[in-house]
Amino acid sequence: MFATHGGAGVIERDNLSEEQDAAIRAALSHALGTGSAVLAEGGTSIDAVEATIRELEDDPHFNAGRGAVFTYEGNIEHDASIMDGATRAAGAVTGTTTVRHPVSLARRVMENSPHVFLRGLGAEQFATEQGVARVENSWFETDFRRRALEEMRAREAEGQSAYDVDLKYGTVGAVALDTHGNVAAATSTGGLTGKRWGRIGDSPIIGAGTYADNRGCAVSATGAGEYFIRVGVAHEICAQIRMAAQEVSVSDPAAIPSDADIQQIANGVINEMAALGGSGGVIVTTPWGHTVYSFDTVADSSTKELRSP
Amino acid sequence: MFATHGGAGVIERDNLSEEQDAAIRAALSHALGTGSAVLAEGGTSIDAVEATIRELEDDPHFNAGRGAVFTYEGNIEHDASIMDGATRAAGAVTGTTTVRHPVSLARRVMENSPHVFLRGLGAEQFATEQGVARVENSWFETDFRRRALEEMRAREAEGQSAYDVDLKYGTVGAVALDTHGNVAAATSTGGLTGKRWGRIGDSPIIGAGTYADNRGCAVSATGAGEYFIRVGVAHEICAQIRMAAQEVSVSDPAAIPSDADIQQIANGVINEMAALGGSGGVIVTTPWGHTVYSFDTVADSSTKELRSP
Repeated sequence: MFATHGGAGVIERDNLSEEQDAAIRAALSHALGTGSAVLAEGGTSIDAVEATIRELEDDPHFNAGRGAVFTYEGNIEHDASIMDGATRAAGAVTGTTTVRHPVSLARRVMENSPHVFLRGLGAEQFATEQGVARVENSWFETDFRRRALEEMRAREAEGQSAYDVDLKYGTVGAVALDTHGNVAAATSTGGLTGKRWGRIGDSPIIGAGTYADNRGCAVSATGAGEYFIRVGVAHEICAQIRMAAQEVSVSDPAAIPSDADIQQIANGVINEMAALGGSGGVIVTTPWGHTVYSFDTVADSSTKELRSP
Repeated sequence: MFATHGGAGVIERDNLSEEQDAAIRAALSHALGTGSAVLAEGGTSIDAVEATIRELEDDPHFNAGRGAVFTYEGNIEHDASIMDGATRAAGAVTGTTTVRHPVSLARRVMENSPHVFLRGLGAEQFATEQGVARVENSWFETDFRRRALEEMRAREAEGQSAYDVDLKYGTVGAVALDTHGNVAAATSTGGLTGKRWGRIGDSPIIGAGTYADNRGCAVSATGAGEYFIRVGVAHEICAQIRMAAQEVSVSDPAAIPSDADIQQIANGVINEMAALGGSGGVIVTTPWGHTVYSFDTVADSSTKELRSP
């Protein structure tokens, strides 16, 4: 069971040429196949989500790795996180600038450091000690995202809200359930176009943009990160599913929540986030085989979410 | 209703001279009075927690502001967060080095930026734009914490676990309920002695070390941050209390959870964190007037927690 998303907001079809649209569909579909193949060979959910995110980080169509958005100062700074539902081990990084695969550095933090979350130059130093693949910051640049920064600055110069409307998202995420019954989640992003002051969004925050717990589910989120942090979207969904699973198992220990239960929980938390003023969505997979998504933005499932059994 | 804590771990009485012990009790008691006075005058819970934390940040006895621990490289880097339960607005900073009151910068992030969480040099730049009080990094230094770094390095040189045993904590936190019925929480820390690679702990993470929601409670945590992040301690406690309150109100809309219910929820989540291998605790206050604390470490309530009606 595997699902991946390519973000919310940027990938509204009106903003895409047919060519772009086809390329994004193909890229998400290929990355879905990569993760699914790991699972089909008996691999772990954590390996599957990492493999899929690595592929999307290299693809310039997404706001992660190569193709990530520019900061206000014209740099590219990445955020990523990963979590293993079997152990609730987690790793995350924010503000890396030369790490080709931020999701893999997050996994190194999880496995090879006593910490969960590293930032900036310290995370870069850890990357050097771990020997992960590095590139120049310019390797991540795309003309498309450069124009988005220029447009953002133009809006700001005209006194409009700088973080308005589209071209903001494109965060990538994946959730998986493996044949061992373990779930995992990972998320990777460049954040918001024109972000400044070292802004950290929800993607690298365990509990906000990413969470995994075998007692509940695995979640990866995308959207207006500040609202996802305030609601604790990923953790809230996992907690509610965990409690729902406990509740239905009281009379019959083998009983599990229904698809409708899981969908209702995900929709409820997304609605709560939207009620605060945010937008975006999540993909969710449970240890019992449910996979659902819930987005409050324009629902074009072909570009936003893909799943495989 | 107001409660404050001065951390877990460092303040075990065996490690303290009588003089230190008395000074810490007096400082916590004075800071408690500061927050309580804000509330008594009809002030807001967010003002009360900020005022208390500012005072403790200036006090060299605590691992926050002046008196914070040293990083592995011998610098001092602060983390802080604040959250308003009425609106679930939140602000947080990590890795600031010249901001005298990190909790107040976190509040500026909450009120004067579109973001929730800022890091490092970007947060410092935001501090400049906001005109908050600044000091040299050396102003935060204390001999006590310098020795702790040397001891940590000595342990490491002997092949022992670098982050072992005491002298680690001393994080400060506060939770409040004001006369308007709103709860708020704030937490401030220097993190772990000898932290490296830009490590971010739970204190600045909304949902891990700090959370506030008028439908549930306000929480401030202290302890082995990595475990608090993985469990989502502050958010989990608030979610469980929110659901317990919904449940008891089904038959009688005016019914509220009992003190025992709130204590059981806090203890349950702290036990879950400890079961993963962590240690530490929380202070909790609810909109219905409950105030509880739950620590899995040596319970010396006089130095770890103080409350006022």
